[in-house]
Amino acid sequence: MFNRDVSRKRADWVPASVVWTETYDEVLDASPDVVVEVVGGVNPAHQWVSQAIERGASVVTANKMLLAAHGPELLKAASSAGVRLRFEAAVGGGVPLIHGVREGLAGDSLTGVAGILNGTCNYILSRMSATGEPMDIVLADAQRLGYAEADPTADVDGFDAAAKLVVLAGIAFHRHLKLQDVPRRSIRPLSSADFQYATRLGCTIRQVSRVQATGTGFYGFVGPVLVPQGSSFGRNEGANNVVSIYGRYGGESSFSGAGAGGPATAVAVVSDLLALTQRGTRSEAEEWTPATFVAPPPMPYYLRFVVKDQPGILATIAAALARQDVNLDAVLQEPGYPKDRLPFVITVEPCAETALLEALDELSQADWHADPPLALPMLLGQDS
Amino acid sequence: MFNRDVSRKRADWVPASVVWTETYDEVLDASPDVVVEVVGGVNPAHQWVSQAIERGASVVTANKMLLAAHGPELLKAASSAGVRLRFEAAVGGGVPLIHGVREGLAGDSLTGVAGILNGTCNYILSRMSATGEPMDIVLADAQRLGYAEADPTADVDGFDAAAKLVVLAGIAFHRHLKLQDVPRRSIRPLSSADFQYATRLGCTIRQVSRVQATGTGFYGFVGPVLVPQGSSFGRNEGANNVVSIYGRYGGESSFSGAGAGGPATAVAVVSDLLALTQRGTRSEAEEWTPATFVAPPPMPYYLRFVVKDQPGILATIAAALARQDVNLDAVLQEPGYPKDRLPFVITVEPCAETALLEALDELSQADWHADPPLALPMLLGQDS
Repeated sequence: MFNRDVSRKRADWVPASVVWTETYDEVLDASPDVVVEVVGGVNPAHQWVSQAIERGASVVTANKMLLAAHGPELLKAASSAGVRLRFEAAVGGGVPLIHGVREGLAGDSLTGVAGILNGTCNYILSRMSATGEPMDIVLADAQRLGYAEADPTADVDGFDAAAKLVVLAGIAFHRHLKLQDVPRRSIRPLSSADFQYATRLGCTIRQVSRVQATGTGFYGFVGPVLVPQGSSFGRNEGANNVVSIYGRYGGESSFSGAGAGGPATAVAVVSDLLALTQRGTRSEAEEWTPATFVAPPPMPYYLRFVVKDQPGILATIAAALARQDVNLDAVLQEPGYPKDRLPFVITVEPCAETALLEALDELSQADWHADPPLALPMLLGQDS
Repeated sequence: MFNRDVSRKRADWVPASVVWTETYDEVLDASPDVVVEVVGGVNPAHQWVSQAIERGASVVTANKMLLAAHGPELLKAASSAGVRLRFEAAVGGGVPLIHGVREGLAGDSLTGVAGILNGTCNYILSRMSATGEPMDIVLADAQRLGYAEADPTADVDGFDAAAKLVVLAGIAFHRHLKLQDVPRRSIRPLSSADFQYATRLGCTIRQVSRVQATGTGFYGFVGPVLVPQGSSFGRNEGANNVVSIYGRYGGESSFSGAGAGGPATAVAVVSDLLALTQRGTRSEAEEWTPATFVAPPPMPYYLRFVVKDQPGILATIAAALARQDVNLDAVLQEPGYPKDRLPFVITVEPCAETALLEALDELSQADWHADPPLALPMLLGQDS
């Protein structure tokens, strides 16, 4: 058992026959059949996994960042070396997504994947939705309870979910989307008022990760979106993960369960090990070829403004949207907010994201903003 | 391509290189690598699949009845012959349950499976719940729309779901429960009044199939149960399937999607074929050892009586229940029903099923019954 600080990890219940080492070369020198990598982070995991594959060992990893960055190269190396690379634990923890998608849906032609892939964000957002508490209180509690890291950036800004989305897209489409290409929006700007307005619209807010195949490429994103309260995403509470896979023939299949945590990760790692034991290390020759993002199709949006109230604001916004051919759907304004920090919401009919951003950019110079405006896609109908 | 009536099935789009035959021996004589069996029913499928395995062919089947009846024997034969038997299409159609449970959760110690496994019953019950229509109207419509067979016995009386449950238990626990041992209750006695009362209790009614492992054996059933409206079973609409798997380490994982239909079944069959192609026909040596059912633990029950109203009925029922130590929880009586066919409901606290049946048996001689009483388990909390 290799660890960079053996004394910190050594435990009484581990059989005496298990050899502990702080030198990775000792692991390789033992000519292992399988190396299990649960160190996390791209480096030095990249080097360790590459070396294991070169030496003819199959690898089981829980490392989404490594796969998002180097998946295609590692899969190719495994295929050349005649060994296997398995990573059930990298996405959705205890949810047997990878097996289900890669093998159980192999006979379908998949068209999209969408899911709640980050338990920390879901804990924060489902609790804000339920209690009306502000983000900072809920985030602090999540940190205290161990749901969120001291530096929550990877979770709340969508890096963690984006890495999982890249892995999921690899499995579903055999294509590699670059991690840095995944459009990400943070959940940080969300306020209690957003949940109040979402409720008025029959919706709630969740961090959703989505990739959809089109004829010409893929579009997708990671970030907060409005979803109907009664949808599978809207009903997903706490740190649970839920993923929907869309197939041309089989329609929608959904998977849900514990997204992370030691036991769920352990189940996934052991399941991968068993799969290697039962089927040998024969390579699956899986390849992820490069893929690019295209612009998303028109979607309806939720726009939230927080303004220092004065006459003419709505007319100004409406005119800016009209100039981009963006049609208003509804204007919502709840009572009880102070006039100098007044949040109100405009929903717009499906429009191109670029047109919407153009309109918001034009409005950005106005002196009546108390907070920057927030635009969230609304995932209605089948997609949530 | 073997069919018992080739002229009925021959289609223009099938390549000319495909050989059609009405003689199964011709299939075997061609020394196939894989035989795909989608004929349904125990016989003659049993003979055909056995012969294929004996001759060294792997088998992909969608046949739940065959597996429920002869699964252990066929798995053993496949193992001896060094070939594989795969059956993703047998349970949950397009939902990649078998791959997910068998491989993705292999590292867990599973404790239970529960699900909505019959799309026809779910269509009938979710529509009765939504519209208040009586069973006969909805069933006739389901038959007209092709959701239900002319003889709906296999669906509504639970045979179809019980066969799927036996297969699922095989995969989850590597144990074989005999099909005829699975306690089944029909959905036929359900009336509009039951859905009205269920709603009063915050519940709806679904046909649920469930097997739970205990230290000493398994308990389970197929039949209508009360489930909370907001639970994953209560929210499952139309012909969709949903299955939850409970693991000692990973907690609950859920799968949902199209339960049946040509495209979903085709996806499952093709996925199995791909798995055989990619991994060779090396046997998985899966074995299902015999298992027996034990009495279920105490559960809360919903009891519905339809009576010719007269004084003293409630006192008589309460006394019969008390003699068996069954405690009343609530008594519900909705207005607007005729006095000579008055439905009312008693819910009872968790009790042994045998005690409850004893009490109902004692009451069966009373002359005030307009319909036989109905007892439905209430699946509350985590189990629905």
